[in-house]
Amino acid sequence: MTVAPAASGAERFLVLADGAFGPESSKTANACIRYTPSRVVAVWDGARAGKTAHDVLGFGGAIPVVASFDDGLRHEPNALLIGIAPPGGRLPESWKAVVARGIERGMPVWSGLHTFIGDDPELGPLARRHGVPIHDLRRPPEDIPVATGRVREVKATVVLTVGSDCNIGKMTAALQVRDHMRAHGHRVAFAGTGQTGILIEGRGISVDAVVADFIAGAAERLVLDAAPDSDIVLVEGQGSIVHPSYSGVTYGLIHGSLPHAFVMCTQPSRTHVNNNEWVRIPSLPDLVRMHEAVAAPLRPAPVIAVALNTYDLSDSEARRAIAEAEQQTGLPATDPVRFDPAPVSDAIMRFHQQRTATH
Amino acid sequence: MTVAPAASGAERFLVLADGAFGPESSKTANACIRYTPSRVVAVWDGARAGKTAHDVLGFGGAIPVVASFDDGLRHEPNALLIGIAPPGGRLPESWKAVVARGIERGMPVWSGLHTFIGDDPELGPLARRHGVPIHDLRRPPEDIPVATGRVREVKATVVLTVGSDCNIGKMTAALQVRDHMRAHGHRVAFAGTGQTGILIEGRGISVDAVVADFIAGAAERLVLDAAPDSDIVLVEGQGSIVHPSYSGVTYGLIHGSLPHAFVMCTQPSRTHVNNNEWVRIPSLPDLVRMHEAVAAPLRPAPVIAVALNTYDLSDSEARRAIAEAEQQTGLPATDPVRFDPAPVSDAIMRFHQQRTATH
Repeated sequence: MTVAPAASGAERFLVLADGAFGPESSKTANACIRYTPSRVVAVWDGARAGKTAHDVLGFGGAIPVVASFDDGLRHEPNALLIGIAPPGGRLPESWKAVVARGIERGMPVWSGLHTFIGDDPELGPLARRHGVPIHDLRRPPEDIPVATGRVREVKATVVLTVGSDCNIGKMTAALQVRDHMRAHGHRVAFAGTGQTGILIEGRGISVDAVVADFIAGAAERLVLDAAPDSDIVLVEGQGSIVHPSYSGVTYGLIHGSLPHAFVMCTQPSRTHVNNNEWVRIPSLPDLVRMHEAVAAPLRPAPVIAVALNTYDLSDSEARRAIAEAEQQTGLPATDPVRFDPAPVSDAIMRFHQQRTATH
Repeated sequence: MTVAPAASGAERFLVLADGAFGPESSKTANACIRYTPSRVVAVWDGARAGKTAHDVLGFGGAIPVVASFDDGLRHEPNALLIGIAPPGGRLPESWKAVVARGIERGMPVWSGLHTFIGDDPELGPLARRHGVPIHDLRRPPEDIPVATGRVREVKATVVLTVGSDCNIGKMTAALQVRDHMRAHGHRVAFAGTGQTGILIEGRGISVDAVVADFIAGAAERLVLDAAPDSDIVLVEGQGSIVHPSYSGVTYGLIHGSLPHAFVMCTQPSRTHVNNNEWVRIPSLPDLVRMHEAVAAPLRPAPVIAVALNTYDLSDSEARRAIAEAEQQTGLPATDPVRFDPAPVSDAIMRFHQQRTATH
């Protein structure tokens, strides 16, 4: 498996998120802070300077938000992390000077943008001149095959997180469940399919960055590589089957990874696709039916649990939303960040035991 | 619109299809021969040397099949066309020497492979040294945006050909219907989405070759560019929603082009996805239902006609298959190559008139 550069664990990131640090707008920064907080020393966002990560996100403790690159330097970062992954994935023009200053100071740059920093006509040569590594997390390996269906030979139980929209918690649900299952002694692998999952896991393929004909092939390879030492492979979902810009990636990931089961991720407060108000998100039962219908012609797969993202609800609203999801679908539900991930983890282990008992 | 190099019309292609010239194995060659036969002087396929295109394909008249590159030269070609587009799209190693000889003789190379000839470490520099153009039809423009749904503003009626498998007649159905409609005075555009459609039309974007996040954006741009001077935009379909390798491209094309209606293309004799015998093709009524379900959350679109590919059936079998398709779906059906395309064309014009009358 061609892997992204593994996290050395020794990074001290200054995270670039100017004007964009927030629960829904700085996905890469947020996941890095949630899962590897010791790698982040400061976040640059002029509009929120003086706050902490916890003030802005509700987690991340005392990591400071700073007003400028120079303020960030006081926290002795040794690397830069581009903290956003906007639609289309380009570096904001105004950030270029900051990235250049980091490179000139010898700071490696980590980026999940579609537009590769290493290919930038100014930043690429600058980094090479200074001998500074650029980690473009979305750059795909060059030898991805066309999918073959070989993934059907995998003995592990493959579970894909899917959802009603982009940036709704598919990666987070998978990581929370992974950690919960590992704490209970299960052999579980996480297959990272996006820049942030790769940043956290240290390997993976960004399936939205491969050439379109190879989406399923990339997904297949991720599962084949993750499966051998695991009983459960949790595949990080991407996009949504109703997303007007990215649905191709989602469907290719479903048909390439051929999961045995789905975990459905939604945000109760979200009624329309973000930035696409003309697309109404189908009801939870409809989403369940649609995913099962799409999988069926290749390999039938049920939705076995629901993971809700309730960060913008009160505790009582969140509990009500979970009860409602359970009632609507007849499936176990939880918010695996806010509450115990066990309802999802247990559903997966029950499914795995039933599946392997009958095979 | 960034277009592929327009066909000059002055090419005299030697088509490379060694060991692969046939109804199902040399898609690019076959479409070029069907729609622009005057551009083809000979086909290289040692296994079928001495035959004519008509002998092998059932169309293409006296275009000769030759045993070698040297035999091909006797027909005075001035360009090479790679006649195949195999899974994964690489140039057979054994063809490289032939392509190199063509380049050395000053013959431009046209290719629809995923692996760009212009990027080949030997052939690319060789072509540049000789000043010979390489037309890599699948090379995408560099400025494709993320899809926005702007395609909903288009006044023309957008019709997408979809189908039960790859290489089953989606492009051919669209081209046959285009020609039939034009002959009847309708303003109809063809939006080429694959290497062969681009070769024939002289413009388009190969949606399977763009970065995965931009499939829908490419489809949207194709429709926006084709729409202004047309009442009908026929979008060339790709892959199939049940194809285990390429379904992502198909779904992205559906959600990016947001057709008002579908034309369903199938081959009655094909029961399983080619090269993927583990995937059974759903019944025609199921395919109709599945496509309508996938479109519905973004913009409802009915299947309005069926185009059958009956090349491997007798006349009476073909007529029976058409009657059966009509009976199963309640929709008009035809084989638009073998018989009159009118049932499909008329269904599109009726749909267009109803749609515009009520808007």
